[in-house]
Amino acid sequence: MSDEIKVFCPATIANISCGFDVLGVALDAVGDEMTVRKTSEKGIRITKIDGQELPMATLKNVAGVAGLAFLAASDYKGGFEIEIYKKIKAGSGIGSSAASSTGAVWAMNELLDKPFSTLELVQFSMEGERLASGVAHADNVAPALFGGFTLVRSYKPLDIIPIPSPNELYATIIHPQIEVKTSDSRKILKTTISLSDGIKQWGNVGGLIAALFTNDYDLIGRSLEDHIVEPIRSILIPAFDDVKKTAIQSGALGCGISGSGPSIFAFSKGLEIAEKVEQAMKEIYKNIGIDYDIHVSKVNLEGVRKI
Amino acid sequence: MSDEIKVFCPATIANISCGFDVLGVALDAVGDEMTVRKTSEKGIRITKIDGQELPMATLKNVAGVAGLAFLAASDYKGGFEIEIYKKIKAGSGIGSSAASSTGAVWAMNELLDKPFSTLELVQFSMEGERLASGVAHADNVAPALFGGFTLVRSYKPLDIIPIPSPNELYATIIHPQIEVKTSDSRKILKTTISLSDGIKQWGNVGGLIAALFTNDYDLIGRSLEDHIVEPIRSILIPAFDDVKKTAIQSGALGCGISGSGPSIFAFSKGLEIAEKVEQAMKEIYKNIGIDYDIHVSKVNLEGVRKI
Repeated sequence: MSDEIKVFCPATIANISCGFDVLGVALDAVGDEMTVRKTSEKGIRITKIDGQELPMATLKNVAGVAGLAFLAASDYKGGFEIEIYKKIKAGSGIGSSAASSTGAVWAMNELLDKPFSTLELVQFSMEGERLASGVAHADNVAPALFGGFTLVRSYKPLDIIPIPSPNELYATIIHPQIEVKTSDSRKILKTTISLSDGIKQWGNVGGLIAALFTNDYDLIGRSLEDHIVEPIRSILIPAFDDVKKTAIQSGALGCGISGSGPSIFAFSKGLEIAEKVEQAMKEIYKNIGIDYDIHVSKVNLEGVRKI
Repeated sequence: MSDEIKVFCPATIANISCGFDVLGVALDAVGDEMTVRKTSEKGIRITKIDGQELPMATLKNVAGVAGLAFLAASDYKGGFEIEIYKKIKAGSGIGSSAASSTGAVWAMNELLDKPFSTLELVQFSMEGERLASGVAHADNVAPALFGGFTLVRSYKPLDIIPIPSPNELYATIIHPQIEVKTSDSRKILKTTISLSDGIKQWGNVGGLIAALFTNDYDLIGRSLEDHIVEPIRSILIPAFDDVKKTAIQSGALGCGISGSGPSIFAFSKGLEIAEKVEQAMKEIYKNIGIDYDIHVSKVNLEGVRKI
């Protein structure tokens, strides 16, 4: 075994419209890179963070905290050093913290010859999510580790179901440069919903899962509805309704909030439409003078990988 | 074309645990029979009902009302006579009204050389459901017409998704001889639910759909959870908790309320376990002195059919 590994940790879209808190997908074209190496010294040290201002202290860094959860469950006597090359902006809503925490634990698991299952790695990574947002959610870390789409069927016990992804499915993700903290965007949610909205939501989740199994792009589009969270959270995102309308007019199958925002994702069939959607989304923010990052990406079927 | 047809109209389980109002499945071993014949006289006449006391007046009979909806949409100038041989008890919770209304419209469609799609037949049948329960629900009539499992993704517009069924899946359904009216069991439901229960529910719906696509019997079992409706409605069903516990102990994958009750269904892998579950369920009601009907059935993949 080598003592050092370099990994690509994909960005992810969670809370996919109807799939609030349960459905996520990994991206191919956006992600962080990390170098992780074994050390004889115990514990986790973050030795470098490139590309962003983030805490280096192990207990304040999501990769550090996830790594400590890994070490606590492992019988390995040494420790790890981590270098993080951030490409995903913190607070963008495309799984920045999940990329760092999954990259760290996946790399460590490789360096120790895979003592843990992917499901166990999800659990370690969730400790990073707890640090980032106050809630140990799994809907970004699961797709980052498994690749493709994943369903978090249950938290107690943790039950992750990998879901197939149609070949020509592309995501366009635009990140308007405003800050929405995950913890804030959780606070504005209501704690109760109407039964009738609930029924719509689980009908759509069922439809979306069926669509992903049958490569039914139209059904993907019809199922990308959210009557519960989007109407509330979209208020925090400038021009959300315009961006969504424009994306659909440009041919997108559907469009919604990525994670807890402010990024907005659209799914399209084929690269050509995804790029049309990209142009249309850009125009909206150009016109109102808001800076943005934008990505077009295939679904990443592999999850975190060695590079 | 013949002027007369005899059809088998399957019983159905709706509200499959997590799939309240959206998921149903058709059964093979239980169903009504109907004979439908063309008449030169316009309109629908119920000429015979065998096996049960039900209204013969067209506007008070679910098959009559569904048939009228069919006629109203059709350019056929004649009418139909219907004989109904009821085997499914009204109020049992296994789609008695859906069987009659789907049998009628499916038969009429055959006799006229299929002017309507299956989805259109669902819409006519829903008028029968409106008469029976006050709500034009589709979760029994959809599986009765399409066969297998069906997901009602949306009502507006009506969107029915056929879902595959694993080969060895059997249902055991016990009907304790007490009356629970659909309209009453709707009334006791709360109109709001907690967001956290909603998330569990749509996680389970996603899991169940994925399980049906992948023949994952264990996942079927894990997904057959209902945190929303079952805790409330099960109060109306004598010994529900005992029946469920016993079914699971006997090897059932999961167990829940069929439709709005009082029937209880359990799914099992293979006939042998389904029959064990049958024996165990019987014992419970024998011991407390409640009469029952009980059925063991494969999933009916065809829906209503000519016999």
